[in-house]
Amino acid sequence: MNSADHLRQQGAAAQAASALLARLPTETRNHALENIAHSLETEQGPILDANAADYRDAQADGINDAFLDRLLLTSERLNDMAVDVRRVAALQDPVGEVIEAFTLENGLDVEKRRIPLGVIASIYESRPNVTTDIVALALKSGNACLLRGGKETLRSNTALVALIHRALGEAGLTTDSVQFVDDTDRTLVDVMLQMKDEINLLVPRGGSGLINFVAENATMPVLTGGVGVCHTYVDRDADSEMAASIVYNAKVQRPTVCNALDTVLVHSEVAGRCLPTIANRLHEAGVEMRCDHRALTILGPDSGPNTIPAQPDDWGREFLALIAAIKVVDSLDDALDHIQTYGSGHSEAIITQDGDAAERFLNEVDAAAVYHNTSTRFTDGAQFGFGSEVGISTDKFHARGPLGVRELTSYKWIVRGNGQIRG
Amino acid sequence: MNSADHLRQQGAAAQAASALLARLPTETRNHALENIAHSLETEQGPILDANAADYRDAQADGINDAFLDRLLLTSERLNDMAVDVRRVAALQDPVGEVIEAFTLENGLDVEKRRIPLGVIASIYESRPNVTTDIVALALKSGNACLLRGGKETLRSNTALVALIHRALGEAGLTTDSVQFVDDTDRTLVDVMLQMKDEINLLVPRGGSGLINFVAENATMPVLTGGVGVCHTYVDRDADSEMAASIVYNAKVQRPTVCNALDTVLVHSEVAGRCLPTIANRLHEAGVEMRCDHRALTILGPDSGPNTIPAQPDDWGREFLALIAAIKVVDSLDDALDHIQTYGSGHSEAIITQDGDAAERFLNEVDAAAVYHNTSTRFTDGAQFGFGSEVGISTDKFHARGPLGVRELTSYKWIVRGNGQIRG
Repeated sequence: MNSADHLRQQGAAAQAASALLARLPTETRNHALENIAHSLETEQGPILDANAADYRDAQADGINDAFLDRLLLTSERLNDMAVDVRRVAALQDPVGEVIEAFTLENGLDVEKRRIPLGVIASIYESRPNVTTDIVALALKSGNACLLRGGKETLRSNTALVALIHRALGEAGLTTDSVQFVDDTDRTLVDVMLQMKDEINLLVPRGGSGLINFVAENATMPVLTGGVGVCHTYVDRDADSEMAASIVYNAKVQRPTVCNALDTVLVHSEVAGRCLPTIANRLHEAGVEMRCDHRALTILGPDSGPNTIPAQPDDWGREFLALIAAIKVVDSLDDALDHIQTYGSGHSEAIITQDGDAAERFLNEVDAAAVYHNTSTRFTDGAQFGFGSEVGISTDKFHARGPLGVRELTSYKWIVRGNGQIRG
Repeated sequence: MNSADHLRQQGAAAQAASALLARLPTETRNHALENIAHSLETEQGPILDANAADYRDAQADGINDAFLDRLLLTSERLNDMAVDVRRVAALQDPVGEVIEAFTLENGLDVEKRRIPLGVIASIYESRPNVTTDIVALALKSGNACLLRGGKETLRSNTALVALIHRALGEAGLTTDSVQFVDDTDRTLVDVMLQMKDEINLLVPRGGSGLINFVAENATMPVLTGGVGVCHTYVDRDADSEMAASIVYNAKVQRPTVCNALDTVLVHSEVAGRCLPTIANRLHEAGVEMRCDHRALTILGPDSGPNTIPAQPDDWGREFLALIAAIKVVDSLDDALDHIQTYGSGHSEAIITQDGDAAERFLNEVDAAAVYHNTSTRFTDGAQFGFGSEVGISTDKFHARGPLGVRELTSYKWIVRGNGQIRG
């Protein structure tokens, strides 16, 4: 059998398993998750060996350090993954939740009940912890899943999925619930994109090239995200210490992720006071500051080699590095215009003591998450209390922001009567 | 300017208008709806004239009576449309609704707030009341809309949209909020399907050919439905009078719509008692009954010319006419299997006095709406209290069942802090 046929069979098997999963009691699904967590703590040997082999090959291929770091598994990281799985297990079960209920005038009782979507597929980057995150969120929400991880982590994922399959079997779940694509042939992505009868939701993760390709060519529902051009606007009424602390956190705490700061906008009336404070903090961390001419003037000629003029394409750019674009604006309106033009609809923040300005910003900025006096870094499933996340959607349809268990569900209408007919 | 460019300009204008609409207070949007309703009652002349011209041409083209009836506007129907618009206006405003709110341990206040999707587009059949339904639901939910109605109703829709534009203008809304495609060139559908930057949701209505074409080729989110292969299962513990009454209603009350009954499944233990009762009622209405051999045997050789053997393709067929397929099954499981194989995921019913059987059916049937002891005809936005509906989704993603104002929304996450940073 060729791999395309095999992939389609995996999809059909996942679809069949999803019908069983949808009916399992909460306890059984939680039991499976607990088994997975326990195995992640107690059966680390084969996974660490497999990961060491993946790591060695990736290193030999000259892959960069940040990538290698995401690929690497350690005993501690496996324990952290177990914690994440248990955190998902501890969530309220979304399956069967009554979203709303009402009685019609004719006496019909109507209930809107949450149900699983069916089969969640993901094509994702070479980070093995994503494997257990997606499996945990899918099983918790009563869904089967179909996983295709990055080729550099093939052995790690194969070992992880073997562990997951054993854990599922011990909990009485069919191993068909978790399907892993162990063939890294690129053309299988095209096959997957046609499997609309087998896949109810596809979440592409990783590079924007892959994400755009999937969004444009998939025949099934897709949720995309992953690209965040995030602004923090320091308003006229900002507290400059708070502004510096939040900008520093948003840029420096983890610069390689989508909710990290890319551009600072500062109101001209406070730029003279706030910008040097902010720049001092960013300097400490070695952040390169790409400034418009007004910011450059304020920071002065002696502000160091890390302070350089911004180029036009620095606005609207996701840096994923210790680089920030800085611009002075004359008003909240100018900040809103800039964000509307250059933002990616991910995460945007305003720093201000002016409640009216904050509310205007929160209302008018069209993004998955909008922040007042805090860091855009909080756009994250774990931070929001979702346990973890399948991704962060910048789409508006179906789900926006972190994708947790609820976002992997649909609903059905249940109507109970005693003979009512329509007149 | 050619029509493709014009269409794209309409989309861009709608998109710009949607940003304004999203910020309008509830009262202003309701005022616009009240203006539309009032005009529908008081400015009927031009619309009735336009509709008479449409009707005359359609009649001359030999179009069938059911189609002509849907196309026809009368003074009474315009008054009914006004009532529908006012019913939507009276709904709670979905825009700004706080879907959930919680405070994180670090003190951040998180709010999930409902917002409009942006621009709702629809390609729909030659029924002018759909124009005012979609306009009302879109405006109520803070969305702009882009409408392409059936070519047989071009003059009617042009007159209706002129009325709507006047009503919007008097309420201070830009007429760009409602865009009407007055060019019936078929190639414009292809243009529309590419307008993912201008259209946030596309709802195709009408024939399954169009719906499938749109679902497969659209680059933006689509909600599809409109095809309903609906079963009513008469269980072993059914009340036969109730069963007959519900089956009759589901089949006969309006046979040309998607939530009408197509197939009756009857448990073998009660078929001898229930089937004749059901068949007598259906006979009254002249329903053709296409029976499997067991049903045929029960109904007997003298049951009349309307009782004929079912052909294999009668199972899973949407009749949209006074025709019903009838089958005897041996168990609830067989009924569930039949529905899983042949259902379209629209509306399915069980008639039984057995609570356990009912719960199994309601839980296990995978459809937008599942019914116990009542008619599938209730799957309807107005019946559910949504005022009206843009369509009925048989998709699972984003929205399922009747599409009212809430289903035309997305949400954003709003996070308020006082300097919190991520550790």
